[in-house]
Amino acid sequence: MNPLRFLGTILVLAATAGPAAAGPAPAESRPLGFSSGNAKRQQALEQAFDAKIDPADLRRWLELMSSEPNHVGTAKDKANADFMLAQFRSWGWDAHIETFYCLYPTPLTHALELVAPVHYTAQLTEPPVAGDRTSTQVAQELPAYNVYGADGDITAELVYVNYGMPEDYEALARLGISVKGRIVLARYGVGWRGLKPKLAYEHGAVGCIIYSDPHEDGYFRGDAYPDGPWKGPHGVQRGSVLDLPVRPGDPLTPGIGATKDAKRLTIAEAKTVLKIMVMPIAYAEAQHLLAALGGPVSPESWHGALPLTYRVGPGPAKVRMQIASDWSLKPVYDVIATLRGSEFPDEWVIRGNHHDGWTFGAYDPLSANVSMMAEAQSIGRLAGTGWRPKRTLVYCGWDGEEPGMLGSTEWAEEHADELRQKAVLYLNSDCYGRGWLNIGGSQELSHFVNQAVDGVRDPETGASLGERWQAAELVAGYAKGGNDLPPLHGDVPLKALGSGSDFAVFLQFIGVPTLDTQIWGEFHSSGIYHSAYDSFDYFVRFVDPGFVYGVAQAKANGHMVLRMADAEVLPMRFGDFAGAVGSYLDQVRRLAAKMRQDTTLLNHLVGQDAFKLAADPQEQYVPPERKPEVPALRFAPLEAALARLQQSAQACDRAYADAASRDFSLPPERLGQVDLLLQGLEHALLDPEGLPGRSWHRHLIYAPGLFTGYDTKTLPAVREAIEARKWDEADRYIVRTAAALDRFSDRLNLVTAALRP
Amino acid sequence: MNPLRFLGTILVLAATAGPAAAGPAPAESRPLGFSSGNAKRQQALEQAFDAKIDPADLRRWLELMSSEPNHVGTAKDKANADFMLAQFRSWGWDAHIETFYCLYPTPLTHALELVAPVHYTAQLTEPPVAGDRTSTQVAQELPAYNVYGADGDITAELVYVNYGMPEDYEALARLGISVKGRIVLARYGVGWRGLKPKLAYEHGAVGCIIYSDPHEDGYFRGDAYPDGPWKGPHGVQRGSVLDLPVRPGDPLTPGIGATKDAKRLTIAEAKTVLKIMVMPIAYAEAQHLLAALGGPVSPESWHGALPLTYRVGPGPAKVRMQIASDWSLKPVYDVIATLRGSEFPDEWVIRGNHHDGWTFGAYDPLSANVSMMAEAQSIGRLAGTGWRPKRTLVYCGWDGEEPGMLGSTEWAEEHADELRQKAVLYLNSDCYGRGWLNIGGSQELSHFVNQAVDGVRDPETGASLGERWQAAELVAGYAKGGNDLPPLHGDVPLKALGSGSDFAVFLQFIGVPTLDTQIWGEFHSSGIYHSAYDSFDYFVRFVDPGFVYGVAQAKANGHMVLRMADAEVLPMRFGDFAGAVGSYLDQVRRLAAKMRQDTTLLNHLVGQDAFKLAADPQEQYVPPERKPEVPALRFAPLEAALARLQQSAQACDRAYADAASRDFSLPPERLGQVDLLLQGLEHALLDPEGLPGRSWHRHLIYAPGLFTGYDTKTLPAVREAIEARKWDEADRYIVRTAAALDRFSDRLNLVTAALRP
Repeated sequence: MNPLRFLGTILVLAATAGPAAAGPAPAESRPLGFSSGNAKRQQALEQAFDAKIDPADLRRWLELMSSEPNHVGTAKDKANADFMLAQFRSWGWDAHIETFYCLYPTPLTHALELVAPVHYTAQLTEPPVAGDRTSTQVAQELPAYNVYGADGDITAELVYVNYGMPEDYEALARLGISVKGRIVLARYGVGWRGLKPKLAYEHGAVGCIIYSDPHEDGYFRGDAYPDGPWKGPHGVQRGSVLDLPVRPGDPLTPGIGATKDAKRLTIAEAKTVLKIMVMPIAYAEAQHLLAALGGPVSPESWHGALPLTYRVGPGPAKVRMQIASDWSLKPVYDVIATLRGSEFPDEWVIRGNHHDGWTFGAYDPLSANVSMMAEAQSIGRLAGTGWRPKRTLVYCGWDGEEPGMLGSTEWAEEHADELRQKAVLYLNSDCYGRGWLNIGGSQELSHFVNQAVDGVRDPETGASLGERWQAAELVAGYAKGGNDLPPLHGDVPLKALGSGSDFAVFLQFIGVPTLDTQIWGEFHSSGIYHSAYDSFDYFVRFVDPGFVYGVAQAKANGHMVLRMADAEVLPMRFGDFAGAVGSYLDQVRRLAAKMRQDTTLLNHLVGQDAFKLAADPQEQYVPPERKPEVPALRFAPLEAALARLQQSAQACDRAYADAASRDFSLPPERLGQVDLLLQGLEHALLDPEGLPGRSWHRHLIYAPGLFTGYDTKTLPAVREAIEARKWDEADRYIVRTAAALDRFSDRLNLVTAALRP
Repeated sequence: MNPLRFLGTILVLAATAGPAAAGPAPAESRPLGFSSGNAKRQQALEQAFDAKIDPADLRRWLELMSSEPNHVGTAKDKANADFMLAQFRSWGWDAHIETFYCLYPTPLTHALELVAPVHYTAQLTEPPVAGDRTSTQVAQELPAYNVYGADGDITAELVYVNYGMPEDYEALARLGISVKGRIVLARYGVGWRGLKPKLAYEHGAVGCIIYSDPHEDGYFRGDAYPDGPWKGPHGVQRGSVLDLPVRPGDPLTPGIGATKDAKRLTIAEAKTVLKIMVMPIAYAEAQHLLAALGGPVSPESWHGALPLTYRVGPGPAKVRMQIASDWSLKPVYDVIATLRGSEFPDEWVIRGNHHDGWTFGAYDPLSANVSMMAEAQSIGRLAGTGWRPKRTLVYCGWDGEEPGMLGSTEWAEEHADELRQKAVLYLNSDCYGRGWLNIGGSQELSHFVNQAVDGVRDPETGASLGERWQAAELVAGYAKGGNDLPPLHGDVPLKALGSGSDFAVFLQFIGVPTLDTQIWGEFHSSGIYHSAYDSFDYFVRFVDPGFVYGVAQAKANGHMVLRMADAEVLPMRFGDFAGAVGSYLDQVRRLAAKMRQDTTLLNHLVGQDAFKLAADPQEQYVPPERKPEVPALRFAPLEAALARLQQSAQACDRAYADAASRDFSLPPERLGQVDLLLQGLEHALLDPEGLPGRSWHRHLIYAPGLFTGYDTKTLPAVREAIEARKWDEADRYIVRTAAALDRFSDRLNLVTAALRP
């Protein structure tokens, strides 16, 4: 047990035993940003907050909100927004619905046939399942489709492309197989779904079918639904294929709010709508297509768990895809609830979760949405006792996250200037399971988060959420061989954030310190993820029957919100950020060195004709070609900026700790000045020109990968330039990223000065 | 292309163009051990040798010898030995059959039933297959069984144990599941088959069923026989489960020849016969057993390619196994053919391949056996022209390899003293496919081998066998990430040898410089390995239809035999050996360091209760326990011995090269002295006490792993002591291994002295 943790536990126990037991705690054991007096008040506040969270509420709300399909454009979507609005108001929040109008195509006709060498017509529906009451609403559900693919009616030969990622096309090239003019069959997994059709299109394919192989999601993993939680033969994963790594949000209004009268692009002009047909299917249907493929046996890592030999094709399987959609704008209903801050009303602590699902959405997103509602209810009740947060709280129920974070992106784009001035935190959640914490975010929030979650108990083990989180991360690292282990003692590092949920616009476009929290690990959602079986009945059977993790998550997130709202000074620690940037730079340097070494070896082997000699002449094989050697990159500016950042961060953290040990006894205007400086810090890391080729994404430290989709690339402009072998661009963005870090250090030095007595 | 290779090619081309084109070659481009004059003669000899190899012979002999089941004890086994004897004699060899009498149980009754929760009776036969003519001889085949398991009639609950390796029992312990009193179901793969029942027995199991999962061998890999080369649903892998890591050969006559009147142990005293029932089955039958298992879902890496959820059990599946065997001694017929050396008749170049199969044995072993026969025929014809080898050639057709290298082990044990005095090389083969070379052996033979194979063309690519070998090794290393790459230029390193074929007794027990050669890579034998479908029809369809690789292998092995026979001085280079020992020592030191680091981490996590905290309380889980910390091992004696070895090797190689550049113009008695010293060198590496717990295995540099079975552990006594956490034993064998290296260096220094003018 680490000493800080132990002290934290003592404090909680002491506070529980009675107020007399807790003397003035040393500053480093107090919540970051709190004086000793306020720390005690905050503890009492958190206890009162916790006492008002009732799992029965979560259960009732979840059952109600997931009773019908609630995707964008449905009556239930609107009804859920209205329900949340009424609830927020009844809890004393100043709430309203803000409506945007977004391009959101839904299929009118939708068919898939195998036309050769045998005939098979895909069912494309998810049949009712015993014990799952809402699964009978087949007619009301959206068909299983991928939103923002193209319409059309095409017939073409089929090619199996594994996960459809860049390395898979590399392997296809080695087999001498092109997808040009063909339809690709890709399985879900590895990269984000939207990359599969995007890459297929870039390689010349005319259609993309995506299926869930039982190897990733089905009997290979465990019992299939309804016997167990895993995907059955007819379950389908819907989902967006909007070009998210370029930009989330309404495709027709980039960078601005999609208000009624906003100036819109035409659909043809919309860069994030794909030009290729896309369709998701179940493994029971994919099996017919795979069994009809000829051609070479696919590389071994491409084989899934269906009982057949996975071949690549092309053909003799030939497939017909038909899609025609309603391309009208649909309303998106964001529920926005505010509780005005008493001391710093112009500092906003923003908390959000989306309320739209793909079908019933009990797990994704309503589980975490009702957990957030419980926070809001409890905070409302605290406010009813006369308490007010120092900073303004803004709770948001986003609509349209599933198609592409429409509600959050449009709202933040519409209020961009105000958010740049006022937002001090965006805290996101999306869905939750059982297990332990999984938290990503701005690295300067690491210690703040670790402190906050240590005050909440894990319902299954009785340990603190923090202890279980650390244990899970360490054991996972140990199981992987112990090389990339998090620290054995002290804080659990936050994961770096990319995209994939409503936090994206706040972090990537506005530059707000951001967190994304989830409890997970023991329930693997993929079995019903985005399918018609993501239902209340499934949730209470397999995910969190007693809603105890919904309560734990509400407490953890609620404590973070309340601490961020009530701290004397915004609670951040910059050594954590500097340390993280140092490790990112290390990775990038190692990446370049490894590429250099691999390239030299590749070119040597090509020169010796080794690939051809090592290939079986009885099989079709195209050896790789030489690549340009990797030059020495000029990392010096980033190295210098990092060294400066490390110094500035250390000085600032020291000044902050000194101020804390004096109970932040600074003149009030100085405290405000510190907050103001801290509030704008993350913004310094943005490049006004944005990342290469995708100007909406501006953060130079974290971004979703161009070829990962959701997952993060740190130091993204530099890293992706290296990966793409664009050496000049890498050198240029080394300089720009260094400049951003210098801006950050400059502002940090002002914070340090302002914190001095 | 490496410069030496290039020169080699030039020489071959020049020799082909006509004798005048090749001037005296510099010593380093000549075959190791040859003067310039002899090098030219040797080239001509090899060309003459090659010209006499006819693929039609291989085809004819293979069809004949694989026409009926030919395992030990069959009439066909004897007939094949008689056929080889007649052939050798007809080619001018002095040949005889040497007969041993070995314990070789064969099943009389043999049954397997699933008795709960449903009933299923396994067929345990391999049905005839269209297009495979010998597959109709079901009645004549041995049942699919594992020789040297126990007899019995037991009924017990079933537990699935993955590959049945030590780490799998570790995982079972984490699940809180014991195999005590139960029958285990293991899949083929990862470790040698005999370890599966041995480990099951050590963990308290009463029976062991082994099946071939289609993930390793079946439709997951490619089309199943007869559509393609992979295993069909009813194919079964037979095989020995003799405790080979302890000792191969007749279980009743350890260390001595199993002659008619040899003093024998009782079966109960025989340590290498297992005390547990064992049975191999097909995946069509295993599917019934796996589907009947309950209990937790197995760890993900345990899942095979059958379309079901792999569970561990125990039960409700309950299984009955019945085996009763004929435990009589059976005759084992070794064919021994000799061609007496003209200059050094007491130096024996021994060449061997076994002739017994599990059924028809077309691939294993007869493919390589007929290739070896082609060598013997060609050498016989050369002898017919008046040529004689300088050293004596001994060609051996071993019987009883499949049950446990019976023929080779008994022959070598019977002739041990003579072999220790006379054997200069044992060159083994066993079976071959298409592709490239795979050669293991004593490391001082590395350069000799690389030179010899460079003079033979690969039939598919036209490159030399050496070039293709190097390309394949480099590309495989590149595909694995480029970390453990063989050298980019120069010789391809030989693999270190363990056990698993007839070379074992020569290397491990006698201490003869040893090679084991094979062409492989493009044909994966597992589809018919040890099954009834290892037939002539299969071979000519999927393996080597034109017998061109059989010819290439005969040329490569023949050149090695002829060079070893005719060199002025035995062709060895000791820098290669010293380099290899250095890398083995590095590995062992890194192993200890990694264990130390892992143990510290494990104990930290156990101390923090992290494993329990990170586990899902809804699943049964037993956290691991603390392990004793890894002490600092005293590697100094080995480090010193290695340094000495490196010096001695360098000096010897230099003296050898100098002598070569003077065309070995030493007095004849000095040449003989050098040979005599070199002949006994490998013996210096043996420990007369043998390895800990298995005294038959004496080599301190290479041994089959106690827990790998066939695969090698280098510096085995030290490495396995570390793996078993026996620190005192590790320190003790560091000293003993160092002493062996010192003996080697001492003798090497005598060679150096003798080589000086």
